[in-house]
Amino acid sequence: MRTHYCGELRTAHIGETVTLCAWVDRRRDHGGVIFLDLRDRSGVVQIVSDPQRTPTSYEPAEALRNEYVVKITGRVTKRPEESLNPRLPTGEIEIYADKIEQLNAVRKQLPFQVATAETEPVREELRLKYRYLDLRRDRMSRNIQMRHQVIKAIRRYLEDEQNFIEVETPILTRSTPEGARDYLVPSRVHPGEWFALPQSPQLFKQLLMVSGLDRYYQIARCFRDEDLRADRQPEFTQLDMEMSFMSQAEIIKLNEDLVSYIFKTVKGIDLPRPFPQLTYAEAMERYGSDKPDTRYGLELVNVSDLFKESGFKVFSGAIASGGIVKVLPIPGGNDAISNVRIKPGGDLFKEASEAGARGLAYIRVREDGEIDTIGAIKDNLSESQKQELLSRTGVKTGDLLLFAADKADIVNKTLDRLRQAIANELNLIDPDKINLLWVTDFPMFEWNAGEKRLEALHHPFTAPHPDDLHDLKTARAQAYDIIFNGFEIGGGSLRIYQREIQEQVFATIGLSPEEAQSKFGFLLEAFEYGTPPHGGIAYGLDRLVMLLAGEESIRDVIAFPKTQQASCLLTEAPSKVDDKQLKELQVTSTYNPKA
Amino acid sequence: MRTHYCGELRTAHIGETVTLCAWVDRRRDHGGVIFLDLRDRSGVVQIVSDPQRTPTSYEPAEALRNEYVVKITGRVTKRPEESLNPRLPTGEIEIYADKIEQLNAVRKQLPFQVATAETEPVREELRLKYRYLDLRRDRMSRNIQMRHQVIKAIRRYLEDEQNFIEVETPILTRSTPEGARDYLVPSRVHPGEWFALPQSPQLFKQLLMVSGLDRYYQIARCFRDEDLRADRQPEFTQLDMEMSFMSQAEIIKLNEDLVSYIFKTVKGIDLPRPFPQLTYAEAMERYGSDKPDTRYGLELVNVSDLFKESGFKVFSGAIASGGIVKVLPIPGGNDAISNVRIKPGGDLFKEASEAGARGLAYIRVREDGEIDTIGAIKDNLSESQKQELLSRTGVKTGDLLLFAADKADIVNKTLDRLRQAIANELNLIDPDKINLLWVTDFPMFEWNAGEKRLEALHHPFTAPHPDDLHDLKTARAQAYDIIFNGFEIGGGSLRIYQREIQEQVFATIGLSPEEAQSKFGFLLEAFEYGTPPHGGIAYGLDRLVMLLAGEESIRDVIAFPKTQQASCLLTEAPSKVDDKQLKELQVTSTYNPKA
Repeated sequence: MRTHYCGELRTAHIGETVTLCAWVDRRRDHGGVIFLDLRDRSGVVQIVSDPQRTPTSYEPAEALRNEYVVKITGRVTKRPEESLNPRLPTGEIEIYADKIEQLNAVRKQLPFQVATAETEPVREELRLKYRYLDLRRDRMSRNIQMRHQVIKAIRRYLEDEQNFIEVETPILTRSTPEGARDYLVPSRVHPGEWFALPQSPQLFKQLLMVSGLDRYYQIARCFRDEDLRADRQPEFTQLDMEMSFMSQAEIIKLNEDLVSYIFKTVKGIDLPRPFPQLTYAEAMERYGSDKPDTRYGLELVNVSDLFKESGFKVFSGAIASGGIVKVLPIPGGNDAISNVRIKPGGDLFKEASEAGARGLAYIRVREDGEIDTIGAIKDNLSESQKQELLSRTGVKTGDLLLFAADKADIVNKTLDRLRQAIANELNLIDPDKINLLWVTDFPMFEWNAGEKRLEALHHPFTAPHPDDLHDLKTARAQAYDIIFNGFEIGGGSLRIYQREIQEQVFATIGLSPEEAQSKFGFLLEAFEYGTPPHGGIAYGLDRLVMLLAGEESIRDVIAFPKTQQASCLLTEAPSKVDDKQLKELQVTSTYNPKA
Repeated sequence: MRTHYCGELRTAHIGETVTLCAWVDRRRDHGGVIFLDLRDRSGVVQIVSDPQRTPTSYEPAEALRNEYVVKITGRVTKRPEESLNPRLPTGEIEIYADKIEQLNAVRKQLPFQVATAETEPVREELRLKYRYLDLRRDRMSRNIQMRHQVIKAIRRYLEDEQNFIEVETPILTRSTPEGARDYLVPSRVHPGEWFALPQSPQLFKQLLMVSGLDRYYQIARCFRDEDLRADRQPEFTQLDMEMSFMSQAEIIKLNEDLVSYIFKTVKGIDLPRPFPQLTYAEAMERYGSDKPDTRYGLELVNVSDLFKESGFKVFSGAIASGGIVKVLPIPGGNDAISNVRIKPGGDLFKEASEAGARGLAYIRVREDGEIDTIGAIKDNLSESQKQELLSRTGVKTGDLLLFAADKADIVNKTLDRLRQAIANELNLIDPDKINLLWVTDFPMFEWNAGEKRLEALHHPFTAPHPDDLHDLKTARAQAYDIIFNGFEIGGGSLRIYQREIQEQVFATIGLSPEEAQSKFGFLLEAFEYGTPPHGGIAYGLDRLVMLLAGEESIRDVIAFPKTQQASCLLTEAPSKVDDKQLKELQVTSTYNPKA
């Protein structure tokens, strides 16, 4: 039907007769001449209908309103000097419409304006209910198109440069809950039994390595029935990769090339390589986080040794009970941050409490190395301790030191939060800066205090570091996360490929041999038939696209997302179903609304 | 770790030192010299280890057994004249192994041989249970790689040549059962409510057109909880497409280009274009099928007019009660097909009965236009009727005419089955022939005798033919199926984009306005806000790949398929789950195994 897209027309098309199929973005009547901004997914172009110059299109043009669907044929013309629009890619031309055909109309009041020029924010519930209108808006249309560009770049790089094969793995699979809750699907053919939707294709991609497929990738849908704190979705998309016969260094190199290819293709940005690497221990020590944002400094300093014997019991007591003392030095913090904000009731105190800290100590650095702090600290700080503190933290006049003293995880969490909040407040983050790094050498396990057992920090298929096999409980994993501006965008590991080690890991997380056999027997058996060394990685694609698009929620880069209450406002899913359906499945709800 | 894949080595590599990581496909000991066929997903290459020439590799080579995983470094050498293997792409070279490293062993008896040379059939249950071994076998490895090539070709064509955007649509969506049963997923957050897995992304792709995305595609996972007769899977993959502002002819042209691109890329075959088109009425008349295999003749001939007044009551009676009489002429059928096979108890009679026919009449054409048949026919056939019959069916001496007389659908089904069975038996099908065609102008609705209502032949979003709007019940649809060698590989239609027509169609299939509103209200409302004319198509990707790979079951082109009992023999899904999981979801099974 059409000859061109709206957004592609340029001065090179002047003189051509073109046919466009598109939406009326905006209609203006200027003293008898009608101007239409015509919009399709490629952009906007200006149409002119004039009772003198284009009498055949004038009457139909008069009948048009915003968001009508039209087919327009006309001549591409240079705009007069005074109406050039340099902000619009098509701003040097306009189209005199010879023929306007109305293909469809709008018959109800639009729930919100979708015109490209409209910038007024719209309530998210309304956007999700009328998602088909929301997706017409410039921002969302660009986001969905960018998502496609990112996925396309991934495929091209992996297929053309790296010999990867895409393989589809099942959505209806077996429940092996580990971490998050599974979504379950009753089986009609096998009543009383259930499928689960996969939390990731982990086991299948490992089995594909056993099968010799060698290099696998998939843009894989994954499912987690979590409480949707923060920015999660019940179903999300993962770039899932697995490869055989590659070392950790080779996998990291390949992934740096992949990520650089995405940035180059989608954003035109050349990333410097190799990306920096931090061990987990370093990252925790210097930033209190395993996904540090290193676009800015504000590094933490461990001062536990200085305060071990301190008379200030808050510090020495924390250390005595196995904790640590760390300090966040804030250049110019004296002016920027008042005592009120640090003390109970203040916003920084609150930030610290939310991380589990019971309070914040501070020292203000005055002129000539003088310090200003509460008596209990000052009285217990010798001159040499003070000098060591000032030199180790590298502070100078006007700087502020914020201290946390507690168990290591609380100290790190507290200072990580404060570091981020203060970097934002003090505008220390250059929004154009792109910071990619690897965190490596994670511990294999972390303590789950609730269940009183070790659990896998990544997942139980992660290979322990070969130097640490003598004591798995404290072993490092051959695992690596990739961090983009303080967000974990991907994580992976070398995998266990020997039955004995896999059984030891299962035992370490408290799986009995019987449980291990019943849940993962097929994997253990596969290891007996010639399993290659292999490893992989998975990226949270929604989050990666979100960051590339400069958005703050993954809902803005998913065509049809669910709300934080895990429902779809457009289709009203989930919903009640016919009793007949449940009867056939031999299941029933036990929910009693009156209870 | 490696420098090359096994299957890519050629005489051009002679003299190079290469490192391979792969599986021992076969190990042979020839008088002290060990030969290994080394296999990876690219193919097989021959490794030589000789105590004289390669003493460093001999001991490790001796320890190897079939399916061990190894890393081998060696020199590529020309094979001696007498051991050239022209059947192997790498058959002109071999590799003298300097170093062999055993990466993993096989510790159990293999459940079946996986070596490339092994051709013995393996029970499918065993193959599915040990799928990771089955996928190592040459045939399955090729199939999975071909599947990837097909999908890659589709993406490249649609993205690079046709400006399509891939968009992911939800897997957790709303139940709108129409046709097949839905798979249901209980919602934990909204107890008593359920998600459904999509039978297709139909509504979402139409909404993407409303949103102006213009050209959408997706390699989409779809789900149908059907009784798994024939070759179906609970989850299957669809190439799903939708486009705005295109006529049926334009959509058909684009899809012919797409399919031709796939054939050219994957099989190196140039398809003649345009593909032939048959209307549904023509296809049923000439082949008794809406997916005819036209690689061979054996066209049906309608002879109802000849027998309307016949004294042979089987024929005239069928016509009198609204049925038809059609004939399948079989060249040379007199010699090929005996009376015993046509009469009760015979295989052709059985074929006909399974299609619902109560019997088969026949006429054998003898020399000089004499015919041979049961008396009741012969006695009631005038000379002029006989001449008309012979001339209309174009038969000659030695040919056989098989008749079916019944309701039209039974007649067509009967003769379609016989036509296919006889074409196979008489070797009328050239297996190298590729036959693609379109069937168009399907009826909008068919009668569902069980539910005593009309139901949509495709789906209720299909647009009626504009000439037939005066009577929707008998209207033709703007629908088109694409047929490949007698298999429907894809089907699509222009869609309704006006609320009034959509409401009329819902009413015609017996949906009350309230039901229509409750199930599809969001679609009806979307039509009010500027919906473009649009249409689309969906291909059964599993079946397309199966046909391209020359396989007979879609299970052979799916990495991890389910059995016909809808279970996974590898992971043993579905399975029992923890009571705790069901409790959290507030659901329970009502299945009572003792009942």
